[in-house]
Order: sequence, then structure tokens, then C-alpha cells
Amino acid sequence: MTEHSLWPLSRAVHRAINERQPEDLEALLDEEVDWAIYGPIDLYPFFGARRGKDAVLDVVRQIGENVRIHRSDREAIMLGVDSASSMLRYSLTALDSNKPISLRIAHFAQFRAGRLTSLRVLLDTFDLVEQTVGYPIHLPRIAAV
Amino acid sequence: MTEHSLWPLSRAVHRAINERQPEDLEALLDEEVDWAIYGPIDLYPFFGARRGKDAVLDVVRQIGENVRIHRSDREAIMLGVDSASSMLRYSLTALDSNKPISLRIAHFAQFRAGRLTSLRVLLDTFDLVEQTVGYPIHLPRIAAV
Repeated sequence: MTEHSLWPLSRAVHRAINERQPEDLEALLDEEVDWAIYGPIDLYPFFGARRGKDAVLDVVRQIGENVRIHRSDREAIMLGVDSASSMLRYSLTALDSNKPISLRIAHFAQFRAGRLTSLRVLLDTFDLVEQTVGYPIHLPRIAAV
Repeated sequence: MTEHSLWPLSRAVHRAINERQPEDLEALLDEEVDWAIYGPIDLYPFFGARRGKDAVLDVVRQIGENVRIHRSDREAIMLGVDSASSMLRYSLTALDSNKPISLRIAHFAQFRAGRLTSLRVLLDTFDLVEQTVGYPIHLPRIAAV
């Protein structure tokens, strides 16, 4: 039984971010890969949509210039023949401030011939923003209850 | 082939929220259901963790007092024997302000004997907060790039 495409991709992304070694990742990206991390792109320029291998390698390089991954814990996972989704909790360090960041993300990935063709990432962005600025964002209580 | 447990659950949640009719949902919840919507609970009291059928019915009632669902579009889905995950885009109305809200969410669900035992929901909370308060939250550009 061969390893699911998610695992080499996961290792390659970690290596590209933490060691600035994108070669493994490059080999696992479809030329036309469709990539999106949903979040405020005016605050985090490496969020948003990217199309194609070069654009994805560039955005992963940007992520690696901003954070270091210390740990990831999987909270849920589903594996299909050519697809995968999981919910993960990441412990990161913001490199400019040296501040720790704890972040929960969900991703949906699709593969073709072992290469990533589509990735969608959702995260708890309000929590991320508060951790990054380092103070709680005070707003009126919004809900009616 | 029987219908996957996700579909009756999805219809029952919509009905409980939009029509304030929780009976269908009640029949599809495990007594010990483990439920979490990750997000700022001081802003949205119906976010956070709940345990057990009564607590979940109560929180779904609260959600129904705050929003109405107009439409949901599925962007990704994975179905397992007793599990499901999907990424959805919702069009809602905030009932107090009558404002439209567009929201992307990811969920991971687990079932036992057709009943929901676990649900984890992640959403783009910063985007939600900006839409709810009705103005952009100005913050310094955070990332180094």
C-alpha cells in the first residue's frame, strides 16, 4: 500500500517553510495548482489565491520568511483516493517579533498523480489577528443573545 | 444505498435555524454530542464548545435568533462511512441589523448510528467580525513581506 499523497506534501510544505528548502515541494505541485488561504490579505500578504507552481512556491517562501512551525497536532482527518481534508492545530513563531502563535486551520486538498492540484485553507483569522497585534481587539458585543 | 448521515443533519440544522423547528435535529443528535464552533465567544456567545444534546439544541436556537440562512454553496466535501467534512459558503442575514453576511465555513462531523457525535466548525472569523460591525478594522500591516 502506497503512502497517501497528503503525507509527502505535508512534509515538503514544512521543509519549505522551516528550512527554506522548496525542492521537495516543487516536485509535488501540479503546474496549474489552484491555491487559496482565506483571510485578510491587506494584513497578511501571503493569504489569498494563487495559481500555478511558481506562484505557490513564491507564497510558501513568503510564509517561511514570516513564521516558523514548531508543532502541528491533527484534530480531524479524512482521506480519499485523490483528496484529503484535515483540521490541525499549529504552534508557530512569528519571526519578526519572536512571538508564539497558536493557530487552528482546516484544509481541503486535491491531488492528481500524487501532485497537488487544489488547496483551500480556512483559519480562525480573528484569533490570529489578535495574537499577531498582541492585544485584544475591543468591539461591541455583536450578537443579540 | 441509504443516504449519508450528513444530509438529514444538514436539513435539520437549517430547519432548526430558519424555522425554529428543532424536532428533526433533536432526533439526529447523540446524547453526548461534542460540539465546537471556533471563534470569539465574547463577541458571539453561540460560538465555543458545547456538550450534550440539550446544550447543542440551545446553542442552535441562539444561532436561529441571530441569523437566517439564505443560501449555502458547497465548495468541497468528503464523505466517510461515519464521518464527513465540507467547506461551504453561506449567505446569511443578521436578524438584528438586517445586514447580509457572507461566510465561508469548514466543518468536520462524526456520526454513530446516524446521529451526530462530534462537530467541529472553523470559519473566517476576522471577515465575519468586519461584516458584523460594518466597517473595516484598521490595523498595522503585520507581516514582514
